[in-house]
Order: sequence, then C-alpha cells, then structure tokens
Amino acid sequence: MSDDVVDLNAKFEQFSEHWSPKLVARLNNYEVKLVRIEGEFVWHSHQDTDELFLVLEGELTIQLRDRDVTLGPGQLYVVPRGVEHCPRADGEVRALLLEPAGVVNTGDAGGDLTAVVTEI
Amino acid sequence: MSDDVVDLNAKFEQFSEHWSPKLVARLNNYEVKLVRIEGEFVWHSHQDTDELFLVLEGELTIQLRDRDVTLGPGQLYVVPRGVEHCPRADGEVRALLLEPAGVVNTGDAGGDLTAVVTEI
Repeated sequence: MSDDVVDLNAKFEQFSEHWSPKLVARLNNYEVKLVRIEGEFVWHSHQDTDELFLVLEGELTIQLRDRDVTLGPGQLYVVPRGVEHCPRADGEVRALLLEPAGVVNTGDAGGDLTAVVTEI
Repeated sequence: MSDDVVDLNAKFEQFSEHWSPKLVARLNNYEVKLVRIEGEFVWHSHQDTDELFLVLEGELTIQLRDRDVTLGPGQLYVVPRGVEHCPRADGEVRALLLEPAGVVNTGDAGGDLTAVVTEI
C-alpha cells in the first residue's frame, strides 16, 4: 500500500480470492478495503460499528433478517451496528468496504471465513 | 437522506452546483458526501483529519504544495491531515468525499466557498 493514488481496478487485479478484503487506504483510524464476493457469506453482526458497502461491479445482495438489500454498481449501503447481515452474490461482485481499523469480517460469528486483512 | 440504498448517480441528479458537498450517508461519526467540482477551489488544510477523495467521473487535480495528484474515475487519494491542498478541475468532476462529521470544506481558509452541507 502506498500513500499515493489508489486505482481501484488495478488493485483488484492484484488478487483473485473471494471474501478476503484487502486494505488499500487508511483515513484516520478507518480502513478502505476492496473485496471480491461470490457465493454466500455467514450471518454475523458488528456490535461496535456501522459497515459501508459500495458495489463497483456485479450485483450484491445483503440479506438482513427482515429483508434483502440489493446493490448494483454505483450503489452503497451502510449496515448499522448490531444488525445481523449475510452478504450473497450469485455472480462475482467487486465491492469497496469502509469501516474502522481492526474490524473482523465475520464479526461475532467467526469461523472458516474469518480473513486476515493484508495490505496491497 | 434515507437509511436505505444510496444510488450515487441518482443523488448527483438532485443537485447541480459546484463546490457544495451533499451528505448522502453516515457511517458512525463519518460522513459520505458527493460533490460536483469545476474550476479551482482555495488552498486550505484540515488540521484534525485526513480527507478521502474518490473520483467517479472526470479528472480531478489535487494540487499539493510540492506536486499535483491527478485522479480519474475509480481512483482515490487521501489527503493527510494538515497538508495544504487545492482541488482543481478543468471539466466537471463528480467525486465522493469521506471525512468525519463536521469538517468544513474550506478547512482553515474560510471564505466565500465555505459551504453549508445539506442532506439529500
């Protein structure tokens, strides 16, 4: 990660795995991450923070307990703190995530999909 | 502003003025704003916070005292806290800004371009 211009498409070319957010920029104590999403994640919540999803490519469904939120390119949604959610995508999605540093992707759920965030 | 999906293009259709950021989403105590940029802003800095610029359309030059940073669509840059900068665009730019709530667009410079941020 450099402190210079971040080209989102170029960053996406640097990794291919799903559900493994990559850190591309810091803003104070917040982190901008890029993630490739395909298939279904795990139900989880983040007790201490909201979480922003901005879709860059593809169609992302963020399942909530009472409804689904569907995002296409150029659309964003903020999952409020404490709200259970489970992202799902039938095709591949490229998304930008924004949240405070140190947030674990699987929140309170843990499990095999818990990712160690690396910088690219 | 709703707590639902934010479509960035649709939000941009709701205003036309330049240098007047509109609040479209909140993430904890941070704000996501959209801004139309054309021409040259004022030199200023933000002593207490970094500031993220993500360009969605057009080409934005962020002048720093020692160099220019140029951003096209899909490129972002974080101006570090305390660093003097002056955005400039020859054609119109659509950009997304991210910073803590309450940050004044003209920072320490003030003046006529100081904007009251409204929610859309």
